[in-house]
Amino acid sequence: MVYLTRREHFNAAHRLYVSQWSEDRNKEVFGPCCNPNFHGHNFNVWVTVRGQPDPVTGFIMNAKDLGRIIREQIVAYFDHKNLNLDLEDFRDRQPSTENVVQVIWKRLEPHLPSGMLYRVKLEETERISVEYYGEQEP
Amino acid sequence: MVYLTRREHFNAAHRLYVSQWSEDRNKEVFGPCCNPNFHGHNFNVWVTVRGQPDPVTGFIMNAKDLGRIIREQIVAYFDHKNLNLDLEDFRDRQPSTENVVQVIWKRLEPHLPSGMLYRVKLEETERISVEYYGEQEP
Amino acid sequence: MVYLTRREHFNAAHRLYVSQWSEDRNKEVFGPCCNPNFHGHNFNVWVTVRGQPDPVTGFIMNAKDLGRIIREQIVAYFDHKNLNLDLEDFRDRQPSTENVVQVIWKRLEPHLPSGMLYRVKLEETERISVEYYGEQEP
Amino acid sequence: MVYLTRREHFNAAHRLYVSQWSEDRNKEVFGPCCNPNFHGHNFNVWVTVRGQPDPVTGFIMNAKDLGRIIREQIVAYFDHKNLNLDLEDFRDRQPSTENVVQVIWKRLEPHLPSGMLYRVKLEETERISVEYYGEQEP
Amino acid sequence: MVYLTRREHFNAAHRLYVSQWSEDRNKEVFGPCCNPNFHGHNFNVWVTVRGQPDPVTGFIMNAKDLGRIIREQIVAYFDHKNLNLDLEDFRDRQPSTENVVQVIWKRLEPHLPSGMLYRVKLEETERISVEYYGEQEP
Amino acid sequence: MVYLTRREHFNAAHRLYVSQWSEDRNKEVFGPCCNPNFHGHNFNVWVTVRGQPDPVTGFIMNAKDLGRIIREQIVAYFDHKNLNLDLEDFRDRQPSTENVVQVIWKRLEPHLPSGMLYRVKLEETERISVEYYGEQEP
Repeated sequence: MVYLTRREHFNAAHRLYVSQWSEDRNKEVFGPCCNPNFHGHNFNVWVTVRGQPDPVTGFIMNAKDLGRIIREQIVAYFDHKNLNLDLEDFRDRQPSTENVVQVIWKRLEPHLPSGMLYRVKLEETERISVEYYGEQEP
Repeated sequence: MVYLTRREHFNAAHRLYVSQWSEDRNKEVFGPCCNPNFHGHNFNVWVTVRGQPDPVTGFIMNAKDLGRIIREQIVAYFDHKNLNLDLEDFRDRQPSTENVVQVIWKRLEPHLPSGMLYRVKLEETERISVEYYGEQEP
Repeated sequence: MVYLTRREHFNAAHRLYVSQWSEDRNKEVFGPCCNPNFHGHNFNVWVTVRGQPDPVTGFIMNAKDLGRIIREQIVAYFDHKNLNLDLEDFRDRQPSTENVVQVIWKRLEPHLPSGMLYRVKLEETERISVEYYGEQEP
Repeated sequence: MVYLTRREHFNAAHRLYVSQWSEDRNKEVFGPCCNPNFHGHNFNVWVTVRGQPDPVTGFIMNAKDLGRIIREQIVAYFDHKNLNLDLEDFRDRQPSTENVVQVIWKRLEPHLPSGMLYRVKLEETERISVEYYGEQEP
Repeated sequence: MVYLTRREHFNAAHRLYVSQWSEDRNKEVFGPCCNPNFHGHNFNVWVTVRGQPDPVTGFIMNAKDLGRIIREQIVAYFDHKNLNLDLEDFRDRQPSTENVVQVIWKRLEPHLPSGMLYRVKLEETERISVEYYGEQEP
Repeated sequence: MVYLTRREHFNAAHRLYVSQWSEDRNKEVFGPCCNPNFHGHNFNVWVTVRGQPDPVTGFIMNAKDLGRIIREQIVAYFDHKNLNLDLEDFRDRQPSTENVVQVIWKRLEPHLPSGMLYRVKLEETERISVEYYGEQEP
């Protein structure tokens, strides 16, 4: 098995907030992340697929195709959006990085050959990132 | 003269939009940046001061103090904010990176010894940044 | 499971040296790293925890809390220190990066919910880093 | 077990091309990568070994020795070369990143203590990288 | 004046060689860079323009337009090319980084408003880069 | 004029301390940087030279030679050293980054063609760097 990773990025706004909680409790848990007017990030996303290299092309998957799929399914969906207001996925779900990475997995998987998607890594800032491996563990 | 640079960062949301223009004209000029629900960025800011090193401390300015001033005047003001809605500075001014860098300069200068501020560099994404040197040229 | 990683950093001095060995043998094995007057590094540390996102907050752990624990247990302990002279842990143990990463694990684990700590990565220079996963394997 | 990673880099030219295919098919699959006059990359390679730290030196392996082995076996072999024309390994094999990473593994393994080599990561551009773990899985 | 910088990148192969010199003299001056089969690089290019921000858009130039001009004039011209064999510019000129950066300037200038182009920075590897400011000095 | 920059790096320990001051005053000014047992950094240094490219080689200076001069004059002198204890230059001078960058300039200049050295940039941490341009201004 060889693992191939491709990076893309998008910019988005979000807000972390629980409407059933008081303002004070929201501030205590989410700090400035609950600002009602939203704040935002440059997100980097790394998608890793795995497989056996094709004996003729030497590819486990054409990196051009992987890039196109990420841009169509992920960048076009998230870029320059407000995660809370613009996206169905976060109507009833907190747009935390942990939840965003799982939405990315769910959106990518049907567009890749079965079993090929291995890992999605999402970087919110230089200091904070998350990884998701679907049902299996790394 | 020695030049000392310190980096800090903040996250913010903004939207580029001219209310007197049609939706079509806004989209043509600003593309996805005019999304009415805002989008956001991780901004890195590098502040450069210049001077003669003190013969005793070896400092042109204590980097701890420079960091504190940037955090008090810039990070506390911009971090986790919506540039359009939360900040006076952009009531009547586009929150473009070019305009933000000038606001940073204006906010920092009174808190630094006269003539010491040399350059402010602001990075909006890994690909786009601006620099401002006040009235003088680099 | 989602994996959350947070980066912090500290600066420290150290020296690699075996007192039972001759100077020549020390130089042969450790090269300039055995300079008796010490040398130093900017260390970056990435701490990864894993768990199920909370259905309300969307967090597996509040990244603010993770940052605070790393700063209290790791940065406050190591930053601007001489690993050989200032820290109990390296009285009878070489302050190699391999040993430092294990000390970081041992110091962090009691402050995190049981089973949550997954990986500690420690970067000594841009070219050299180590990873530790405790008793289990990655 | 502790995992130690060292980075080195090399520059090389290559071309992706299947001689049995038409020009059109080559362009469709490989895009500009099939330019007959070659193009090139700065490759970064990260080699990870694993083991128990020695109780005296604190090393699982001397990072100087690991660096020397990578430079002798990998950098000296690949640096400033044309992968298609200069290297035996790619006479009958596509010099894709997936295939290069496996050649790196094959060249390094005999020079390292048995079972010690854990992972080779090869970065072709800032956006594209591959990983290989030999027969075992990560 | 505000200075706006945008980064793009391309991959290319080249070879440094003086045909009037002996092989030995070429090796002495250019080292492995004179390999007859070429080697290659990932080049990063930063283009800086300067001007007064427009009072309505807040832009000194639309970064989208700057990106498009760089991709049309520079990336499309250099990407996945062999500088020695594919490009007129290096028929009678060494494809050194110093010469490439001047060709980039010459190709960009006619497509930008007069006096707006300030600096082109070209990075050949993580360790080596060049800058060019046209006739004026920085 | 073209400007050529080459990066090298070294690791060193230092301590900021004024012996005529009380412990309290030292702590107030230098914070943890005055730890009597020293702390350390990975320093990156960028050296920029300028000139006209040679019509035959395309070089303003051979980057290999520039690298060799920096390694001989700077890396060999500073790497794995204690700036306070091992180096003459800081017997009576604070080893602040501002002072180190000037020592680098003074050591490099005699080994480069007259007027060619343009800028030395020294990075102490990811957040703090200094630049020096000798007598002239940038």
